[in-house]
Amino acid sequence: MKEYFIDLSKFMMANSSFEESDGVIFSVPYDGTTSFKPGTREGGNAIRISSWGLETYSPILDRDLSELKYCDLKDLDLYGNQEEIFNTVYSVSKEILKEGKKIIVFGGEHSITYPIVKAVKDVYKDIIVIQFDAHCDLRDEYLGNKLSHACVMRRIYELTKHIFQFGIRSGDREEWKFAKKNNIYLKMDLMNKDDLKYIIELDKPIYLTIDIDVLDPAYAPGTGTPEPCGFSTKELLNSLYLLKKVKDKIVGFDIVEVSPIYDPANITAITAAKIVRELMLMIL
Amino acid sequence: MKEYFIDLSKFMMANSSFEESDGVIFSVPYDGTTSFKPGTREGGNAIRISSWGLETYSPILDRDLSELKYCDLKDLDLYGNQEEIFNTVYSVSKEILKEGKKIIVFGGEHSITYPIVKAVKDVYKDIIVIQFDAHCDLRDEYLGNKLSHACVMRRIYELTKHIFQFGIRSGDREEWKFAKKNNIYLKMDLMNKDDLKYIIELDKPIYLTIDIDVLDPAYAPGTGTPEPCGFSTKELLNSLYLLKKVKDKIVGFDIVEVSPIYDPANITAITAAKIVRELMLMIL
Amino acid sequence: MKEYFIDLSKFMMANSSFEESDGVIFSVPYDGTTSFKPGTREGGNAIRISSWGLETYSPILDRDLSELKYCDLKDLDLYGNQEEIFNTVYSVSKEILKEGKKIIVFGGEHSITYPIVKAVKDVYKDIIVIQFDAHCDLRDEYLGNKLSHACVMRRIYELTKHIFQFGIRSGDREEWKFAKKNNIYLKMDLMNKDDLKYIIELDKPIYLTIDIDVLDPAYAPGTGTPEPCGFSTKELLNSLYLLKKVKDKIVGFDIVEVSPIYDPANITAITAAKIVRELMLMIL
Amino acid sequence: MKEYFIDLSKFMMANSSFEESDGVIFSVPYDGTTSFKPGTREGGNAIRISSWGLETYSPILDRDLSELKYCDLKDLDLYGNQEEIFNTVYSVSKEILKEGKKIIVFGGEHSITYPIVKAVKDVYKDIIVIQFDAHCDLRDEYLGNKLSHACVMRRIYELTKHIFQFGIRSGDREEWKFAKKNNIYLKMDLMNKDDLKYIIELDKPIYLTIDIDVLDPAYAPGTGTPEPCGFSTKELLNSLYLLKKVKDKIVGFDIVEVSPIYDPANITAITAAKIVRELMLMIL
Amino acid sequence: MKEYFIDLSKFMMANSSFEESDGVIFSVPYDGTTSFKPGTREGGNAIRISSWGLETYSPILDRDLSELKYCDLKDLDLYGNQEEIFNTVYSVSKEILKEGKKIIVFGGEHSITYPIVKAVKDVYKDIIVIQFDAHCDLRDEYLGNKLSHACVMRRIYELTKHIFQFGIRSGDREEWKFAKKNNIYLKMDLMNKDDLKYIIELDKPIYLTIDIDVLDPAYAPGTGTPEPCGFSTKELLNSLYLLKKVKDKIVGFDIVEVSPIYDPANITAITAAKIVRELMLMIL
Amino acid sequence: MKEYFIDLSKFMMANSSFEESDGVIFSVPYDGTTSFKPGTREGGNAIRISSWGLETYSPILDRDLSELKYCDLKDLDLYGNQEEIFNTVYSVSKEILKEGKKIIVFGGEHSITYPIVKAVKDVYKDIIVIQFDAHCDLRDEYLGNKLSHACVMRRIYELTKHIFQFGIRSGDREEWKFAKKNNIYLKMDLMNKDDLKYIIELDKPIYLTIDIDVLDPAYAPGTGTPEPCGFSTKELLNSLYLLKKVKDKIVGFDIVEVSPIYDPANITAITAAKIVRELMLMIL
Repeated sequence: MKEYFIDLSKFMMANSSFEESDGVIFSVPYDGTTSFKPGTREGGNAIRISSWGLETYSPILDRDLSELKYCDLKDLDLYGNQEEIFNTVYSVSKEILKEGKKIIVFGGEHSITYPIVKAVKDVYKDIIVIQFDAHCDLRDEYLGNKLSHACVMRRIYELTKHIFQFGIRSGDREEWKFAKKNNIYLKMDLMNKDDLKYIIELDKPIYLTIDIDVLDPAYAPGTGTPEPCGFSTKELLNSLYLLKKVKDKIVGFDIVEVSPIYDPANITAITAAKIVRELMLMIL
Repeated sequence: MKEYFIDLSKFMMANSSFEESDGVIFSVPYDGTTSFKPGTREGGNAIRISSWGLETYSPILDRDLSELKYCDLKDLDLYGNQEEIFNTVYSVSKEILKEGKKIIVFGGEHSITYPIVKAVKDVYKDIIVIQFDAHCDLRDEYLGNKLSHACVMRRIYELTKHIFQFGIRSGDREEWKFAKKNNIYLKMDLMNKDDLKYIIELDKPIYLTIDIDVLDPAYAPGTGTPEPCGFSTKELLNSLYLLKKVKDKIVGFDIVEVSPIYDPANITAITAAKIVRELMLMIL
Repeated sequence: MKEYFIDLSKFMMANSSFEESDGVIFSVPYDGTTSFKPGTREGGNAIRISSWGLETYSPILDRDLSELKYCDLKDLDLYGNQEEIFNTVYSVSKEILKEGKKIIVFGGEHSITYPIVKAVKDVYKDIIVIQFDAHCDLRDEYLGNKLSHACVMRRIYELTKHIFQFGIRSGDREEWKFAKKNNIYLKMDLMNKDDLKYIIELDKPIYLTIDIDVLDPAYAPGTGTPEPCGFSTKELLNSLYLLKKVKDKIVGFDIVEVSPIYDPANITAITAAKIVRELMLMIL
Repeated sequence: MKEYFIDLSKFMMANSSFEESDGVIFSVPYDGTTSFKPGTREGGNAIRISSWGLETYSPILDRDLSELKYCDLKDLDLYGNQEEIFNTVYSVSKEILKEGKKIIVFGGEHSITYPIVKAVKDVYKDIIVIQFDAHCDLRDEYLGNKLSHACVMRRIYELTKHIFQFGIRSGDREEWKFAKKNNIYLKMDLMNKDDLKYIIELDKPIYLTIDIDVLDPAYAPGTGTPEPCGFSTKELLNSLYLLKKVKDKIVGFDIVEVSPIYDPANITAITAAKIVRELMLMIL
Repeated sequence: MKEYFIDLSKFMMANSSFEESDGVIFSVPYDGTTSFKPGTREGGNAIRISSWGLETYSPILDRDLSELKYCDLKDLDLYGNQEEIFNTVYSVSKEILKEGKKIIVFGGEHSITYPIVKAVKDVYKDIIVIQFDAHCDLRDEYLGNKLSHACVMRRIYELTKHIFQFGIRSGDREEWKFAKKNNIYLKMDLMNKDDLKYIIELDKPIYLTIDIDVLDPAYAPGTGTPEPCGFSTKELLNSLYLLKKVKDKIVGFDIVEVSPIYDPANITAITAAKIVRELMLMIL
Repeated sequence: MKEYFIDLSKFMMANSSFEESDGVIFSVPYDGTTSFKPGTREGGNAIRISSWGLETYSPILDRDLSELKYCDLKDLDLYGNQEEIFNTVYSVSKEILKEGKKIIVFGGEHSITYPIVKAVKDVYKDIIVIQFDAHCDLRDEYLGNKLSHACVMRRIYELTKHIFQFGIRSGDREEWKFAKKNNIYLKMDLMNKDDLKYIIELDKPIYLTIDIDVLDPAYAPGTGTPEPCGFSTKELLNSLYLLKKVKDKIVGFDIVEVSPIYDPANITAITAAKIVRELMLMIL
């Protein structure tokens, strides 16, 4: 019977078995620390469904998803408090990475990047984390929580000093001071060729985290804390295409903060899906 | 890895294999003849996702979905024109029915009931079709199409004279004349105990088709042709509970015309999901 | 060329010329005094477009719109301040009524009923006004305006003492006192057979005004000041069907306060359209 | 300057100082354990804003809000994890109750009722809790959390055995067993006069908790876990009006689970606001 | 009476009779082959209604719609299957063109362009077709249909080899191969002055087809298959203004794929209306 | 008790008393002359609520709202007809300005700028008005009203000849003629350094009025008359940052035409809030 049916709830073309996959998609439907507008828990499935409105072929990369091997494990089944949930995210990520597979994670809110990076570090030791985001997320704690979405890069900074932040246009004064004081590579603009040079020179495994709010709210209205004065999708992708030079170094990426309830025409989800397609076509 | 993940895109608890299943869910994402407001193609997946907001246990029936064996084949992969698509619906339905399994189908528009009933008839020969609907759907053709959603009961009437129509409050004059002239069992009210007697007496396999617009638009706004002056969900379910008396006779049912784009708070989808749960708990 | 095209922006079947019409539809896209949520200016066109989702035949009245003669003049072209606009409403209404035609008016807000009733009175002298509404609208002035939607029945009471108010469940204390003191026929319930007797006895021309918010917000969410604890569409229509006994006395009616921007699934507009269809089938 | 301005973000007529108030409104914008659809954190402010679309006068109770003395403290400023937040809810509630004032709390999700009831118990010792809800909320734990919204009545049952549950139509099998085994007063129907007798006989201080999902999704679409087959607003209010007999016993109430993002026409919020108005007119 | 009323359902200023018109607007409410998100059938009327929010004067072209002569025939009344419908589109288009009038067509989905171009070819013989679109629409067949929206340019290529495709950023690998192999003028960028030279040199009648999804989803969210990385409205209009040089050669244009149900703030429709205004001011 | 609560209905950080404030925020919930899509009356509160999604710190200006002293008086309590309302706006504005405080006003529709500018003129005599807008608003009257939103700059021109209009891309022919004839400084582009020179040279108190529709509908969908081909938020802010050079001259500003009912993801309101934050950080 299977041949008559189609499962539109997987990311398109995710037809390989786990074993044969070079890339493994899963989502973390967690928005427990979201302070402004909740709803990112449904982001992963929105990206999956929207992916079917795109082609599998990228004319810019001249590659097709049918050439890749990847699977989609769907939503992590959350249980317990934030610590327990993050332990699961960590374990699952590590297990996948240890088998030499690349991970592609859909949020959920940005806090989930921390346990993933922890797993990446434990597997790859010395790593680079590249972030595209409107917010620097460098608070030491937020509303009494050290694992808040607003603190994620601060926690990651404790794992690796090699963090690169692009598109940043929001944060409180303390965060900017912290970045300056610690010489963190924080730019209001997107990554350009000169920025990439530093990354190339470091010559380390790279994990990439994309908060969809790096885009302007016009391009990505469906997100928890939209921040005006952002970038267009074309600008973001042109910056990401630069990473082709280090594509073999990239061991995984996430795309977080897609919030379908604030995305009435689904343009945020389909934009996230296109970014995922292009990145998968680059790194797998 | 599987144990860490959950697939929210299946109807809840649809965990059995096809082989061991007593009931088989699938959906037909077809709205090609819809004349007023399209969008029912996404109805099946909306019902699935919404089901997770319900409990698996029904206090009225004192039964739990975990006691049943059923699977969910997801969306039929449509290809070709209406005739080709309907051939597939027919073949798939027949194949399932022939193995003695009951079918549970999510629309899509109401026209899809025709190939299903054709399969039911071919397997079970002499059958009863019970319809809950706002519209009698007895046109001979509509906008030049004999397989339009507006003609589905007319076509079915050509398959079996044992049709029972409940909740009907809309149709053109010709349809009402046709019903009267042919002594069709058509009622503006829902099925009551007296109506059921006739059905019991016939003592034949029963197929049940529920157009969600039998409910008032207040209860089911998300549908293609909402018709005011309908019923509440409680009234509909109380009528359906009467079918417990003939539950072994029921070989399948469909629920059609759920249109998520007109269902901003998802109440239509969750209402459909509850009807599905209660019917499955009754007939499986 | 005309025969190939259809104008979905008229109320369905409004195909007669003005001259041959027994009934004349027009709308007044005015919401200038709306105090809570504006938007009823677009109500008329929403009713028109939604009408195409209904059948032209009423099984309850066993009549079809194709048997009637009526036209649809569309939106009044508003110009000037409230007084000037109301003068135009008055003149247009009077001109239609003087030719012995019945008027069917779509709001806009409820204040527009005043100039219509003034025209009705000037043509028919001694008249009855029957109102279905959640609010008594008996304030002497509201926010400094004597022609506010909240004052419309007070102004009409100055034109005729024969007012009947049904479904009323909201007003300030002064309004209820005024109604009691002046022995106004105000009921929280809908009109029943006993109420109708008084109307029949008076034996005068009748104008009917329906504020869609007489329905519960579940049935008519798209309105300016939704008031919980209202009626279902079925209850309202059953009450209106009683008017068949005085159908020849009814010289016109309006339906007001439909607000499409708060009606995401269009159920309020289609409900209003069905009420219009049933009333036209009764009085034309 | 103050006299020229109006603050539409308070519940209407909440013009008394804290000191002179007999009733104190506040809201708890917490939805941290919400498992299905988040967003109730914004419920309180939606109720406030919607209240301005209602009159201050109730024709049924023949009382006006202007006769009462109450204030609105707005949103509790949340900080820390669930335990810390609940401690604040507890302290604030207790402080208000200790001054002999009645509390009116807007959710947020249902879990917030637990710390309130704890405060009520600590101040009034032996108390009755009456719940109107679609769900029995009697789980011992949910997703690893004993303070989940799905466990609130189980926790409250540990504080007082005098709990009355009305409108209940959903729960898992264990919850229904627990209720039966412990002789909990759980009814699928709303409270009637006979039910009230038991409450009167107990002759104890009463706290009332209303989950808006006791209403049918048609009447209250904007909620986290809508459950079909519920009640109309009129049915609910008619049941609540019975409490006039024990109005002096009622020391406070909450209304929870209003979720504005799923309430596109705001009818859920305005319905909640009307319930609040009627209850305040009864108990203050 | 007519002078008191306004018909907001026509494109603004479409006040000429068919006979005296230089341009004729009509719409084709067809979305029967739409594979992803249906709803473009309502696109034409959304463009019409939105046009009233614009001025009739263009400061860039320094021309006013009041200087033009055009009429609006509204929606084609669809009947029958796709072939029959397309025959009607063809006949109507041809009849208008034969009288030397220019045609302005609102979709519906993109497939409708095929019968229009067929009519243009039959009247004008050797023609140029310029397309602005995100998708190349060069598939030979799609889901078993050779007349699918995804095949429209392939079919048109069979009518004329003079096709120019601009803004293209999506298609499957076969389509790009086909374009390359056949030397089709396909560009990812919009038309610039150099591109125009080729068009001018050809010196033939021009038909222009604009798929609104050539714009980025930020600018045109309301469309069937939004494709990220598109253009701004300003960029598109600046490209279209170049056509002033060949304005007398342009015999008509269409604008397709506007889908109001995914356009909650109507910005897609108003953007389409502005494009229509500017093009009419250029070519009529 | 106050310390436990937060009032999210004020613009963030508006914690100073009126007396100690250097800037005073208030809103005018008036949309009485709106001709196309009403709803801007709720714009002010939408801006306030959205402000809480932003940081208080601006990395570009390196200033924090906590360094400023300002209060928020909330909504003006409207009463009477347009003239009476405008008198109140005038009086309140004047009273604030006379105490040397700067005013920050949220619309409502654009017509409200006239009484504010009248107050500014009466206090500061010879003034400059800088407008950012899609529409020139230079009509002498509109729909019979000289105080319409479409006439506001014409009325202001009668108060001062020093008006500067930027971003203008819409108006009728007469308006453009009037501007040309009277040498009004009207530009289709945003203000650049050269434009600023003229303003600096004039050396007069400046009032700034920003109609949110100067932005493209992609960036500000939630407005009464969206006009395609506008600017991005980044472009607008970069132009506004130029005003730092004359920041001490600026005595107030307004931001008008935010319409939350057409702003489903709230991006218009949050964009307006960011503009307000940046301007306050510049001028207070």
